[in-house]
Amino acid sequence: MVLHSGGPSPVVNASLLGVVEETRRHPRITQLSGARFGIDGILREDFVDLLAIDPNRLATVALSPSSALGTSRRYVDEETVAAILPVLRARGVEYLFYTGGNGSMGAAARIAESTGVRVIGIPKTIDNDLTHTDHTPGYATAARFFACAARDIGADNRALPGQVEFIEVLGRNTGWLVAATALARCDADDAPHLIYLPETCLPLARLLDDVDRVYRRLGRCVVAVCEGQLDESGQPFGADVRSSSGRPLAMNLGHRLAMLVTEKLKLRARSEKPGLLARSGAAYFSQLDWDEARSAGKAAVRAAISGESAVMITMEREPGSLYSVRCGTVPLTTVASAERAFPAQWRNAAGNDVTNAFLDYAESLLGPIERYPTL
Amino acid sequence: MVLHSGGPSPVVNASLLGVVEETRRHPRITQLSGARFGIDGILREDFVDLLAIDPNRLATVALSPSSALGTSRRYVDEETVAAILPVLRARGVEYLFYTGGNGSMGAAARIAESTGVRVIGIPKTIDNDLTHTDHTPGYATAARFFACAARDIGADNRALPGQVEFIEVLGRNTGWLVAATALARCDADDAPHLIYLPETCLPLARLLDDVDRVYRRLGRCVVAVCEGQLDESGQPFGADVRSSSGRPLAMNLGHRLAMLVTEKLKLRARSEKPGLLARSGAAYFSQLDWDEARSAGKAAVRAAISGESAVMITMEREPGSLYSVRCGTVPLTTVASAERAFPAQWRNAAGNDVTNAFLDYAESLLGPIERYPTL
Repeated sequence: MVLHSGGPSPVVNASLLGVVEETRRHPRITQLSGARFGIDGILREDFVDLLAIDPNRLATVALSPSSALGTSRRYVDEETVAAILPVLRARGVEYLFYTGGNGSMGAAARIAESTGVRVIGIPKTIDNDLTHTDHTPGYATAARFFACAARDIGADNRALPGQVEFIEVLGRNTGWLVAATALARCDADDAPHLIYLPETCLPLARLLDDVDRVYRRLGRCVVAVCEGQLDESGQPFGADVRSSSGRPLAMNLGHRLAMLVTEKLKLRARSEKPGLLARSGAAYFSQLDWDEARSAGKAAVRAAISGESAVMITMEREPGSLYSVRCGTVPLTTVASAERAFPAQWRNAAGNDVTNAFLDYAESLLGPIERYPTL
Repeated sequence: MVLHSGGPSPVVNASLLGVVEETRRHPRITQLSGARFGIDGILREDFVDLLAIDPNRLATVALSPSSALGTSRRYVDEETVAAILPVLRARGVEYLFYTGGNGSMGAAARIAESTGVRVIGIPKTIDNDLTHTDHTPGYATAARFFACAARDIGADNRALPGQVEFIEVLGRNTGWLVAATALARCDADDAPHLIYLPETCLPLARLLDDVDRVYRRLGRCVVAVCEGQLDESGQPFGADVRSSSGRPLAMNLGHRLAMLVTEKLKLRARSEKPGLLARSGAAYFSQLDWDEARSAGKAAVRAAISGESAVMITMEREPGSLYSVRCGTVPLTTVASAERAFPAQWRNAAGNDVTNAFLDYAESLLGPIERYPTL
């Protein structure tokens, strides 16, 4: 049985394809059920017979973003585990392929422990915040989306200067996605001109200084910020905003920062928040990401067949100058609910950019970002 | 001489290509200058020799979004016209190709009247709000972007239900872009489930009723709203929001509506605002839009050569069931600063969707929107 858990990713269907393909190579597995809408599908006994699907149709599905099976955010507590156990037993489920991020790996670990089913985690998160893996399928495509978005907004800002532009990037509390916008640059003056990593608090005065300096030099400025960025007191920017009835209102980070720049620096400013488009669109596939997501699905089936359980597939980068990865495994309990922060050594000293070492890391994953010519 | 004015569009460089190509066919035009950053380029005498550019390079430029020449938002008053006149005379400028939207056509008209230069307007706006033309180059590509965004967010919302999702769409006060999200649908339950056109005020109670009804039926809901949408009292949603010092704060429309849905209906809700990505990205080109933008550039040169002046090129749809357009002209003073609202007869009676007549209009411009399969 295979299921998806947590937010969709642009390549989660490629991992599904990998599971189906590898399963077909092992005649001892006679059935492969896809649970619709994750754990909810098991509870409702709502399954897709994945071995019955026409291979051409499956190939089309695999090239589509979002989750074709459907997914779920339901927290899997002991009661839920107890509720799915009879369903798993009645269907004779021997292997469960659990596709998700760090929260999902905790659920997968609890199911492995309580049910005796062999559970293999398939890593999936655009945030790239799973520990014990070089990177996570889904990251490169979403990172590529935001790098292209920074290039596009940068081209707009260059063509129509006189404006400060904030791009609000996903990633929750970690800076992997916002960092990747650095790949949008070709020349020194290209956007983004400032990149803030949410692992460190950002004093408003420092942001304003940075923006002012860039704007004085170029007459324009593009800033990439992560949705989880906090201010110097560890609060969200705009925590002071109230409705007319006095109720606190969380504002979009990028929008709030644009307003602060307009208010304090008297500059024209705006913000864009492409948000979920980064995980739900097909226009910016990283081919490598897609290939690796498929490989992770295949590796999960091979690990199960070889007798492993309660592990998650990892991507291990081989040493050497040419990019190469192989799949490994790590215990589910090791990665469950752990969060991998963006490394401090990949942040520049001024705290407003990334280092070349990160660019090397990211470039190998995203593939080339096409540049736009100017006249 | 050719220049760009107002916000960049994804196909404005295709119009530039058309101007260069057609100019090359008329040996009597010996020079073609591109003013960098619009009217500012004339004031600063900052020009590109467009006939000296390698055709291969120009072809690459033409396929890139944003404005390769650079553009400007400067208001062209009588003083500015007086300031550019000596530059135009010194360079012997006979024809000026003025690429822009309705505001720019007013500037073009003033320059034509005061200088004796033959000025031809090349239509360019993603908002599609120019009058006296079937549509405007730039619209189809931006509309295609938002239709694809609605499809992508819809796929995400379907895979992970239990959420209300707002997509904030560009278009200022007109509904042409938000209306185009309707093309994302294939089946009856596909997103967007609700589309609001900003030409009509939207009572909050009606929005909440609509969302509640869709959510009860599907367990999910995607709503497309235009950035210029006003509430029942003709105010922006969120006009009541204040900072801690009592200063009014304009909130993002989509974000504000998501908060209101959470507060009033107790539903999980969020919003995305791709914003300028719709005009600055290359991933969603409408081929027809690109071709027509190029044709408009060529038509402008032909109109100038044939003795016309103070006119804008229009796209006139030929009668008949197969899509066909030809370029016409309209006096600049007729289109200057006039705004074409989304037609009331293309809005459904409930005020939360568009009619099939609009779908016919838009489908012919955008080209097919690829669907995602599910399992």
